[in-house]
Amino acid sequence: AGSWGTSGGQGYTQDPPVGTCDLRGELDRFGGVSLNLARLGALDRLDAAAFQKGLQAAIQQWRSEGRIAVWLHIPILQSRFIAPAASLGFCFHHAKSDSSTLTLWLGEGPSRLPGYATHQVGVGGAVFDESTRKILVVQDRNQLKNMWTFPGGMSEPGEDIGDTAVREVFEETGIKSEFKSLLSIRQQHANPGAFGKSDMYIICRLQPCSFTINICQHECSRCEWMDLNDLVKAKNTTPVTSRVARLLLYGYREGFDKIDLTMEEFQAVHTGLFYKLFHKELPANYKTIPGM
Amino acid sequence: AGSWGTSGGQGYTQDPPVGTCDLRGELDRFGGVSLNLARLGALDRLDAAAFQKGLQAAIQQWRSEGRIAVWLHIPILQSRFIAPAASLGFCFHHAKSDSSTLTLWLGEGPSRLPGYATHQVGVGGAVFDESTRKILVVQDRNQLKNMWTFPGGMSEPGEDIGDTAVREVFEETGIKSEFKSLLSIRQQHANPGAFGKSDMYIICRLQPCSFTINICQHECSRCEWMDLNDLVKAKNTTPVTSRVARLLLYGYREGFDKIDLTMEEFQAVHTGLFYKLFHKELPANYKTIPGM
Repeated sequence: AGSWGTSGGQGYTQDPPVGTCDLRGELDRFGGVSLNLARLGALDRLDAAAFQKGLQAAIQQWRSEGRIAVWLHIPILQSRFIAPAASLGFCFHHAKSDSSTLTLWLGEGPSRLPGYATHQVGVGGAVFDESTRKILVVQDRNQLKNMWTFPGGMSEPGEDIGDTAVREVFEETGIKSEFKSLLSIRQQHANPGAFGKSDMYIICRLQPCSFTINICQHECSRCEWMDLNDLVKAKNTTPVTSRVARLLLYGYREGFDKIDLTMEEFQAVHTGLFYKLFHKELPANYKTIPGM
Repeated sequence: AGSWGTSGGQGYTQDPPVGTCDLRGELDRFGGVSLNLARLGALDRLDAAAFQKGLQAAIQQWRSEGRIAVWLHIPILQSRFIAPAASLGFCFHHAKSDSSTLTLWLGEGPSRLPGYATHQVGVGGAVFDESTRKILVVQDRNQLKNMWTFPGGMSEPGEDIGDTAVREVFEETGIKSEFKSLLSIRQQHANPGAFGKSDMYIICRLQPCSFTINICQHECSRCEWMDLNDLVKAKNTTPVTSRVARLLLYGYREGFDKIDLTMEEFQAVHTGLFYKLFHKELPANYKTIPGM
């Protein structure tokens, strides 16, 4: 685990040898050093060859100090420094909108640096109306022609699972709904739509707050409230949709507590950040009584 | 949804205006155009200024043809072309080891291009021995000093949840185990250890196949088989560990079917890829009987 590339403020490396450009990195508590080009002065006047020479000298220095890794942060408009770094052995770790981060492993053996995000997260909303036994289904205009599925889509950065479900259902169908539980998780690798990354698809149970369909023409060709029994019987549906329809039928008949993962919010011990935890509902006596 | 940046093979754009460098993109079925610099000839002799001029002309052409987005793939050693593209409005979409991908949105309104991976996935293994009521717990050397938690760590690219749990448990503790079920999912945003991305942490129930602890000194300061009742009572543990301990106690007393999400493998309709689906076990009659 660990928190590479985040700590900082543990001091700086020693001055580099005289005669090279001044590349002082910031030390981290894992034995790495971090160099952020946005913080260097006079960057516009520095050419790529001088940078490469300076970086080579700095690497030698860091190696002699026993540093095990280098993180290099480069603003997109200064990307002329990427190829010189790559020719010294740096690789991309990741890039976001306006900057990239490269790494070089100096330690023994294979790199122990943490990777970047490995999954995209999609969420589908199974909007089920208990009073009428109707379930909201769509046919996707782009992908799954004539197959009934649940409305849904990709989580936006920083968005909670339940919020994605409610937002996507509304965007695609015009139906307002409320998060009730998490029902199912699918993990898939090498999905061609995920740029070679993995895909986590989560289906939530939602309760409708409105009933008038207002379809998004961009995304859906059809949308309707279907009797749950008909979705269970339907041939033109995906295996996951069919399975979740059966799960909902089980819950509808024998109680949703049989199928629901409920959500609770907790606060992390070290960071103080809030997070959401999903699992089968725990009876109250198990939650509260200490030392059972 | 959709599968941007993956299709290709739908023909090429028209020839660019004479006098600029030859930047012919590949069309995709979503109305975008994709330009892979690795496929251009004579790239080494092309300078950044000529590239910028050629790209500007090509964008004008693509715009006039009604293309709505441009994808630009650049090998790391050709990164001198990034800044010129950025000055024409391109941003990084993502980067992997030896190449980066930039995008420019030409359509109306805000970009509808899909984002990149948003989550890292970690997995913890709750190795519980029913016959002795003992659970395997560790104290992390780096992060959670003196707090009992379950062994675990980040999924490697393309690795299944259950495999991560079994691998991490073995690496940290030397205990061999077998995947039984998925118990709990935590979603957390802006975790400082995740480079600003979100974090999905999944806890699995594992059954031990060996019992002799062989601790990894890099990662753990302590490891032991603890009575489950003691973990439920423990003060020096994280909220998630404590909650999952209570969940396990509930399952131990009243049946693990109360808490387990079991796993099944399916095959995707369109891609033919296999994937794993987790949800509360569905009684056999609900799985098999059509048209209930």
